[in-house]
Amino acid sequence: MSDIRRDPLTGRWVIIAPDRAKRPHDGRLRDDPKQAAPSAPCPFDEGNEGKTPPELLSCRPGGGAPDTPGWRVRVVPNRFPALEREGAAHRTATGPYERIEGIGVHEVVIESPEHITRAVDLPPEQLALALETGRERMAELATDDRIEYALLFKNSGRAGGASLEHVHSQIIATPFVPKTIAEELHRAEAYHHDVGHCLLCDLVAEEQRAGERIVAANDAFLAFCPFAPRFPYETWIVPTDHRPRFERSARGEIDALAAILHDLLVRLDAALDDPPYNAWIHTTPRALGDAAFYHWHLELTPQLGPTAGFERGSDCFINTVAPEKAAKHLRSATEA
Amino acid sequence: MSDIRRDPLTGRWVIIAPDRAKRPHDGRLRDDPKQAAPSAPCPFDEGNEGKTPPELLSCRPGGGAPDTPGWRVRVVPNRFPALEREGAAHRTATGPYERIEGIGVHEVVIESPEHITRAVDLPPEQLALALETGRERMAELATDDRIEYALLFKNSGRAGGASLEHVHSQIIATPFVPKTIAEELHRAEAYHHDVGHCLLCDLVAEEQRAGERIVAANDAFLAFCPFAPRFPYETWIVPTDHRPRFERSARGEIDALAAILHDLLVRLDAALDDPPYNAWIHTTPRALGDAAFYHWHLELTPQLGPTAGFERGSDCFINTVAPEKAAKHLRSATEA
Repeated sequence: MSDIRRDPLTGRWVIIAPDRAKRPHDGRLRDDPKQAAPSAPCPFDEGNEGKTPPELLSCRPGGGAPDTPGWRVRVVPNRFPALEREGAAHRTATGPYERIEGIGVHEVVIESPEHITRAVDLPPEQLALALETGRERMAELATDDRIEYALLFKNSGRAGGASLEHVHSQIIATPFVPKTIAEELHRAEAYHHDVGHCLLCDLVAEEQRAGERIVAANDAFLAFCPFAPRFPYETWIVPTDHRPRFERSARGEIDALAAILHDLLVRLDAALDDPPYNAWIHTTPRALGDAAFYHWHLELTPQLGPTAGFERGSDCFINTVAPEKAAKHLRSATEA
Repeated sequence: MSDIRRDPLTGRWVIIAPDRAKRPHDGRLRDDPKQAAPSAPCPFDEGNEGKTPPELLSCRPGGGAPDTPGWRVRVVPNRFPALEREGAAHRTATGPYERIEGIGVHEVVIESPEHITRAVDLPPEQLALALETGRERMAELATDDRIEYALLFKNSGRAGGASLEHVHSQIIATPFVPKTIAEELHRAEAYHHDVGHCLLCDLVAEEQRAGERIVAANDAFLAFCPFAPRFPYETWIVPTDHRPRFERSARGEIDALAAILHDLLVRLDAALDDPPYNAWIHTTPRALGDAAFYHWHLELTPQLGPTAGFERGSDCFINTVAPEKAAKHLRSATEA
């Protein structure tokens, strides 16, 4: 059983999950960080459905029973979950220390039945199925009132934290709103109070006006390097219209998201030679419904070097590539 | 020239420092992350003083001219600084985007004249000289009113972000108080307002009472694994009496700090086989003087695996080792 604790000094919630230590490849990173562990036989390949816990959701355009071949995307519980979906989210305190029992969700979205190892190699149509299935699962989780937030995220490459090479994303859902999202909500709400607009809508407008940080655009999304990115080549994909919740995206929006994300992944691969990266979606928490002040978006950060003492100790990041330069590089990366 | 920017969404300050891209070994981590780059000849060895920028401060018990042999500890500017100490800390805004010119300080504390690569191999007396020289430099920086905060930190091992193997620490000083410190101050001040005590003093008392997270103790300090650590084996060293500012430590306190830090490093080496790690000191910012509500301390985090998408995207960390277990392991690591 995991334990969720809040550091009284920073207010940061932490999940203490001793069982996670048992998962494979959880040791110190000593090998080539880009090389994923060899996996034979791969539990995520079509035909190996018995090697994962029973599926929670799948995309089966041709029908078929759960946990049999014929799927395009499968959602299964993580075999080494950080959190498990049992019991109530009971909160206690001892002196200055607050604690919640470790209830929550940790799932895997298997994004291809074939043994593909990089999301950039998924055709946009398959990427759209993966995103749509993730969206559907996020919408289901939003009906559980013990869960305050769900993060859909991807680790790509060994240095990006991936322990299985088969292309996949993960969902971790928690009985609290994580610090970063709480901070974004707090600031966006204050901005809305002061200015009367959604902050994300205004950022999209400012980026469209400035132009120099834009990477790509389509009818529904703008992809740009943010003004103050933590990491080199960090890129955000933001709906151009006000869209509080990812889970409520229409199918056409998911298709447009898959198209611009595929385009971004191709550009990153061309510019940085298959970089390890992380990506995640920030959306409005369940309890806030369709907030006027917040707006979902995807953030992607290549993982090009270790995070060191200054960043860990201050949460101030040193970024060696200006976003204007990164955006220019990404815009031109697929020319020639 | 660097550029300091604030992300309007998170409020996080970021230093855009394109010149840092020129430093050696700044590429993607592909080799054994524990292996520091070979360095021949090492610019930090005694006799190679001409290979660093001119020294800013040194510990020379036998006297001698700057930038000549005979030192025990040297402080020099970083050759590839994230920030430079020129001009005023001028703050501007464009639409939602705030910016400060990149003024600040980035220095290196060379902690031994001999080519030693691990702080654990420094005798406690030498570690005390290194900490005392760092303290002295921090006290000097606290007289510059363009600087709001200085972080003294160490990266150890390649995966810990060290690009030169010769034992050293660094100081980065900024014209703003970094996010983590601002958050700690905010929470400590609110706690003091509510309860009338210093939060750090109360944490020391609670840890002494509970006992299970204590790693080591001496007359002036308690070393313990915090209640909600982000990383496995994360350990804090906190003065047992109320001490707002590290820079004002008496020489006897620095000696006691060196003794307990040496002891902790020996335990970590025995328990984890020479782990890469980061460490830093949090202290009260210059402008707050000797605050009643805040209390300096040292934080050390081994770097045993990559930080992945969930952590990057939420600032919520999954820690696979409970602090009670880590503390027990560290307490017994030097037995036998």
